[in-house]
Amino acid sequence: MTGTGPDPHDRHGHAGREFFTTRTVAEALAGFRPSRRTAAETIRLADALERVPAASVTAPHALPGFARSTVDGYAVRAADTYGVSDGLPGYLDVVGAVRMGTAPDVSVGPGTVVSMPTGGVLPPGADAVVMVEYTQAVLDGTIEVVRPVAPGDGVVRADEDAAPGAELVPAGRPLRAQDLGMLAAAGVTCVAVHARPRVTIFSTGDEVVPPDTETLRPGQVRDASAAALAAMITQAGGQPLPGGIVPDDPTALEAALRPALVTSDVIVISAGSSVGARDETAAAVARLGPPGIWCHGLAIRPGKPTLLAECAGVPIIGLPGNPRSALVVFRLIGGPLVRQVGGCTTPPAEPVVRARLERDLASAAGRLDVVQVRVRDGVAVPVFGLSALLSVLTAADGYVVVPEEATGLDAGAQVEVTLYR
Amino acid sequence: MTGTGPDPHDRHGHAGREFFTTRTVAEALAGFRPSRRTAAETIRLADALERVPAASVTAPHALPGFARSTVDGYAVRAADTYGVSDGLPGYLDVVGAVRMGTAPDVSVGPGTVVSMPTGGVLPPGADAVVMVEYTQAVLDGTIEVVRPVAPGDGVVRADEDAAPGAELVPAGRPLRAQDLGMLAAAGVTCVAVHARPRVTIFSTGDEVVPPDTETLRPGQVRDASAAALAAMITQAGGQPLPGGIVPDDPTALEAALRPALVTSDVIVISAGSSVGARDETAAAVARLGPPGIWCHGLAIRPGKPTLLAECAGVPIIGLPGNPRSALVVFRLIGGPLVRQVGGCTTPPAEPVVRARLERDLASAAGRLDVVQVRVRDGVAVPVFGLSALLSVLTAADGYVVVPEEATGLDAGAQVEVTLYR
Repeated sequence: MTGTGPDPHDRHGHAGREFFTTRTVAEALAGFRPSRRTAAETIRLADALERVPAASVTAPHALPGFARSTVDGYAVRAADTYGVSDGLPGYLDVVGAVRMGTAPDVSVGPGTVVSMPTGGVLPPGADAVVMVEYTQAVLDGTIEVVRPVAPGDGVVRADEDAAPGAELVPAGRPLRAQDLGMLAAAGVTCVAVHARPRVTIFSTGDEVVPPDTETLRPGQVRDASAAALAAMITQAGGQPLPGGIVPDDPTALEAALRPALVTSDVIVISAGSSVGARDETAAAVARLGPPGIWCHGLAIRPGKPTLLAECAGVPIIGLPGNPRSALVVFRLIGGPLVRQVGGCTTPPAEPVVRARLERDLASAAGRLDVVQVRVRDGVAVPVFGLSALLSVLTAADGYVVVPEEATGLDAGAQVEVTLYR
Repeated sequence: MTGTGPDPHDRHGHAGREFFTTRTVAEALAGFRPSRRTAAETIRLADALERVPAASVTAPHALPGFARSTVDGYAVRAADTYGVSDGLPGYLDVVGAVRMGTAPDVSVGPGTVVSMPTGGVLPPGADAVVMVEYTQAVLDGTIEVVRPVAPGDGVVRADEDAAPGAELVPAGRPLRAQDLGMLAAAGVTCVAVHARPRVTIFSTGDEVVPPDTETLRPGQVRDASAAALAAMITQAGGQPLPGGIVPDDPTALEAALRPALVTSDVIVISAGSSVGARDETAAAVARLGPPGIWCHGLAIRPGKPTLLAECAGVPIIGLPGNPRSALVVFRLIGGPLVRQVGGCTTPPAEPVVRARLERDLASAAGRLDVVQVRVRDGVAVPVFGLSALLSVLTAADGYVVVPEEATGLDAGAQVEVTLYR
C-alpha cells in the first residue's frame, strides 16, 4: 500500500523526503519489532504470578528428594510377594512403622514389612509398597498379602518429580499457579523476572478533560481512553504511568514526550481526533529522534490513523482519537508490544469461542476489520455503531476479525470470536 | 453414588449416623452453593480492573452530552445539499469555525456552513456534517459541496453513547478495560464492588515444611500447594491469606480453623495425604459447626479425597494431600466457589482450544477424569505420571476432561483443551 503524505522526518539521514507508509496489521506485528527489553529484577515467589522469568529456573536438587510411598500400606521386598493370591496369601512380619516427616528407624529384610503412610520415606531394603487394601492383619505382628507387587509399585522415585538441574520453569513464559507450586517445592522462594514495562499514557486534545471533572463545559469530553489503556497495559504485564492530558499543540506534546523517553519503556499517545491533531502528533514524534516513524496508517477498521515509531530506543504508539478505535488497535498491536518488551516469548492464550455469524459482514480486501459481537446461543451478533461510540465495546462480548484477504464474511459462517476478559 | 464411610458428625441433629457421600463434580457445582457473599466496598476506578460491581452502574447524564461531529468537514443544513453532485455542486458560505473543546459561537442558517473538526460541537441550526473530502474551497469564504448529506450524517447524537440512566456496566460481571473507559467517560471515578473474598489457606501434614526451608530432613517436603493455591485464588478474584502449616492432629487443626472462621470468607485446607490425616481433617471440620460436611469424596481423578463443607457460614474445601490432585480440584471447584462468594455471576471465559487426541484415554463411567496434556500442532498429547507429581502439571499446557458419562476417549477424537494461563 502506498503512502498518504510526506514524512517531515528523514528517518535514514539522507536528504530526500520519504512517504508515510500504511501497513497491514500482519506487517506491523512481524515488522515493527523494537529490540528494547526490560531488565531483570528479583522478586518474592508470592509476587511472581504471571511475571515473566528472565532465565529458566532449574532444580537445585532432586525432587521429592527421597523415595516416597504413594499409598497407605506396607513397604516390602517385591520378591516376597511373587505368586501370592487370595487363595494363597503370603505371610510377612511387621517389623516397624514409618512416621510422616521423619527418617525410617528400621529396614526391610526378607520376610518382613514396615507399615507405611502415603508420602512416607521408603525404608532401606524395600523396593515397593503393597496397598493396605491387599493385606490383612492376621496375628499380632503378622499380615497376609493377597496381591503381588513389582519393584517400584506404590513408590515415587527420589528424582521422579525433578532431577537435579532439570528445568522447572522456562524463561519467557508468564508464571502459572502450578509453576509457583513447583518452585516452592524446590525451595526457590525468589525468582528473577523481567521488570514490568513502564508504559506512559498521554492523551491529547483541547476537548479532553480528566475523568473526575464533575461538570463539563459544552464541547468537553472526559478522558476515557487513558483508564481503559491503563487496564489493557496491566493485563499485558505492563505498569501504566499517567502522562496526563496535553493540548493540541506539537510544541507542548514534544515537551511532554521528551522527558518520558527517559522514564518509559513504551509510550502510548491517544491522539486528538481531528486530522490536524493527528498531524501534530506525528510532527512531535518525528522530532524525538531516530529511527523515528515506522508507519503512519494501519490497514484496519476501526483504527486507520495509527502511528508506530521508535525514538531513542523507546517504542511509541500513536493511537486514533476515537476511544473505541484506540482500544481496538491497542489490543491488537499494543498488548503484544508491551509483552514483547517485557520479555514474554510465550504469551498466554486468549479465550476464543466458535460461533455462527448472524449476518453478512462487508469488508475491503487488504484491510483487516475488527467487528464487535455479542455471543448468544452459539450465534455471533454484530454490534454496530460509529467508531466514536465506546458503548459498542461495552455491549460486546468479544470481536471477530475479518482478515485482510477477505472481502467479507457470509451470514451463517463459522467464525472465531475472541472473548474479552 | 453411595457412601464410603460413617459420618462422625451428625449434621442434622438427629440421633442416627449418616454416611459420607461421594458426589460428582456436576453435583458439587450445582448443589454446593453456600449463600455467603462479600460486602460492597467503594474503590477508585484505577483499581477496579477485574473487580466485580456490586450493583449496576448507570449513566448520570447523556453521553457524549452534545451532538458531535464524527468527521472533519462543515456543519450544514442537510436540505442545502440535496441534489448536489460533482457536475452540479452546491455553493455555501463559511460563516465561522468550531474549535475543539468550546461551544460554537456561531449558528448555521440557510445557505451557510461552519467549519468543523472531528469531535467538535454541532452548532445550532445544523443537522449534519459534510466531510471535507466532498468539499472544495472556491473563493475566500465560499465552498463547493459535491455530495448530498441526510440529517444526522457525520454526527453522533448527544445521547448516542449512553442515554441518562442507561446501564453502563452490569452487576456481577468483572470489569473489563472498556468498561473502565466508559465509566471514566461518564465521570464515574469510584465504583462499588464486592470485596475480594478472603481465602485462608491451611496446609496440614507432619512432613510439610515452609518453602524457604533450605535443607530438608529425610521425609520432609516443602509446602508446594499453598503457593499455587494462593495464585489460583488471586486469579479467581480472591485475597489469599496464609493460614500456615498445621500438624496431623485434629485438635491442632480445629484450634487453627476456629479463629479463621471469623476472618475468612472461604477456608481451604490442603489435607495430609494419608488416610488417617484425611479422616482427622474431616473430624476437625465436622466440629466447627452446622450445617457441616456436604460431601467427603468427589467422583474425580485425580482428586477423590475432597471434602466440601459449610461451617458457621463459611464454605470450607478440604483438598487432597497430593499437590497435583489439590490443584486440579481447586481449579474445578474452588475457583468457581471463590468467584461466587465474590459476587461474580458472569465469570470470564477460559481459553479453550480444540485438538486431536493423540492416544486412547480410559476412564470409569460415573467418574470425571482430568487429563493433563501438551498441545503441539493441533494434537493433544497426554502427560502421564503419578498424582504425587507436580511436574505433570508444569509440563502441561492445559487439560482435557473425560466426562462422567464417558468410559474413555478414543485416539483421534476432537477434544477441548482448557489452557492454563
